[in-house]
Amino acid sequence: MYTNTQILLKNRPNGLPKDSDFSVNEQSVEPLKEGEILVKNKFISLDPAMRGWMNEGRSYIPPVQLGDVMRAFTVGEVVESRDETFQSGDYVSGMLNVQEYAVSSAKKLEKLDTSALKPSNYLSALGIPGLTAYFGLLESGEYRPGETVLVSGAAGAVGSMVGQIAKLHGSTVIGIAGGEKKCDYVVNELGFDACIDYKKEELKSAIRTLCKQYNEGKGVDVYFDNVGGETLEAALANIALNAKIVICGAISQYNSNGEMKGPANYMSLLVNRATMRGMVVFDYVDQYAKAQKDIADWIASGKIQFKEDVIKGITQFPVALNALFSGKNFGKMILEL
Amino acid sequence: MYTNTQILLKNRPNGLPKDSDFSVNEQSVEPLKEGEILVKNKFISLDPAMRGWMNEGRSYIPPVQLGDVMRAFTVGEVVESRDETFQSGDYVSGMLNVQEYAVSSAKKLEKLDTSALKPSNYLSALGIPGLTAYFGLLESGEYRPGETVLVSGAAGAVGSMVGQIAKLHGSTVIGIAGGEKKCDYVVNELGFDACIDYKKEELKSAIRTLCKQYNEGKGVDVYFDNVGGETLEAALANIALNAKIVICGAISQYNSNGEMKGPANYMSLLVNRATMRGMVVFDYVDQYAKAQKDIADWIASGKIQFKEDVIKGITQFPVALNALFSGKNFGKMILEL
Repeated sequence: MYTNTQILLKNRPNGLPKDSDFSVNEQSVEPLKEGEILVKNKFISLDPAMRGWMNEGRSYIPPVQLGDVMRAFTVGEVVESRDETFQSGDYVSGMLNVQEYAVSSAKKLEKLDTSALKPSNYLSALGIPGLTAYFGLLESGEYRPGETVLVSGAAGAVGSMVGQIAKLHGSTVIGIAGGEKKCDYVVNELGFDACIDYKKEELKSAIRTLCKQYNEGKGVDVYFDNVGGETLEAALANIALNAKIVICGAISQYNSNGEMKGPANYMSLLVNRATMRGMVVFDYVDQYAKAQKDIADWIASGKIQFKEDVIKGITQFPVALNALFSGKNFGKMILEL
Repeated sequence: MYTNTQILLKNRPNGLPKDSDFSVNEQSVEPLKEGEILVKNKFISLDPAMRGWMNEGRSYIPPVQLGDVMRAFTVGEVVESRDETFQSGDYVSGMLNVQEYAVSSAKKLEKLDTSALKPSNYLSALGIPGLTAYFGLLESGEYRPGETVLVSGAAGAVGSMVGQIAKLHGSTVIGIAGGEKKCDYVVNELGFDACIDYKKEELKSAIRTLCKQYNEGKGVDVYFDNVGGETLEAALANIALNAKIVICGAISQYNSNGEMKGPANYMSLLVNRATMRGMVVFDYVDQYAKAQKDIADWIASGKIQFKEDVIKGITQFPVALNALFSGKNFGKMILEL
């Protein structure tokens, strides 16, 4: 008999999520039925998208209901299985939520190959962030090798992968990140051509200056947006003809109490015959395996670097979540149980 | 010897253009050089895009310089030619500006076939508005026959064509226009399925109601935006999965003294994996002939209706321009000389 500690969504947050928006619940795990698998969560993924899942209203997936276990993507270990495709000791990933134990059907789990990579990597470079970068750039962004790429959240789990994948394909890549430490990492460890510190530099003119330096001022061909707000406006002011903007997130806007701010200069899309497209990684689920193989190969050959920022203990969930929104994290934010 | 009356741009307008932003100039026409053609302008096109041309700064074409003749697309008659491809009496169109006479090289003129259609039609259904509708819907909008189409400025020169072309291809078409008279025209003469009067109805809920009625609430597949502002937001709130938004103009914003307003709910692009794309008709110049043939055929077979709203006299240019921005015009706004 297992006792399961769970983090429930208690209130819909107003602005930044607070400790009091969550509650801790303990309950016994029911015996497994035929076809079910019991997973002990080891690593819980913290993602900007979680903020949206806490809000009411229509989105790409339904909101988490009040009183329900907070939704999260996790990596765990099978402790009991009543399905022949899984065995005790297998590592798996899935949407198993913020709790110590999860009961799942086989078809909702992915079995992980941990021979060459650590299980937690399936929440970072090989997981949703890496896949988001891969499909966002190569599919939604209609990226062509050699194009000039701009990416916000460049030190983050998604942005760092976007830039490195573009570098692999011969691009000039400009990052945007907050603080000297992150910018150093982006240029010196990840190999971006440049990184703009948005806390110190005026974004619009900084992007312009770099485009003059690197591509004769033609401007940005692909902008991968994780941030929204003024960052998106600064990018729109510097796009090239036929540019493509991938809307992957808008972390600057998620905790806004007031109205979201749209890009005031969106008519730059017309001037530049440009395209702005929203992407959701789940649409590419049929192609995950190929992408994970590519990414694993790049990691194995040392072409892709990544960082994980780990906080321990399930009750630290609200702390870890806020580290993400304040930009305090450095690398993929993971809660280890 | 011809005396040429011209309308010059005197000041860059602040908000709506005023009479005093323009001046009238008279000058003699110089004798033609070899290869030149003298055209007497007969019809001058008034277009929302003109407002942008009056502003300083980078756009898809350079701004009109202060003291220069105001830029305009026109239809005229050749009165003298020193190029063998044009003869006196030929009707031509081109960017010949707001003046009575224009001297042009042959390659900047298009010879018009006026056997079946009036010369002024080359400024409306067969001209830039018709071509904008044609390429905006079929190319930029990646329209597929049968998709649900929403178009703003539905009684206008572009919008009326967009909706009719989509109806020809089996679509449900919803228009947005200002006032009962325009809405009646859109439904009863142009054959749209419905038209929302933005002066009377709350746009967002009106679009939702019509989508429920016509496509089980799936929402709008293609939104053709001539207006921007709140209209764009209302459309974004009602797009279908994989929707396409064509950014053709933003007439609600052109005369704004303050900052332009971006669509606050642009993250609907992400939720719906949708695409927003800017289009400029000039990019399709190589395909104009095919489009004009299609449009002429549709007109000849009675499948396309259109209206021209004509004001006479070159000095009425500012009056005609403001009729366009106030929405007083009904049909394609043309200045007849």
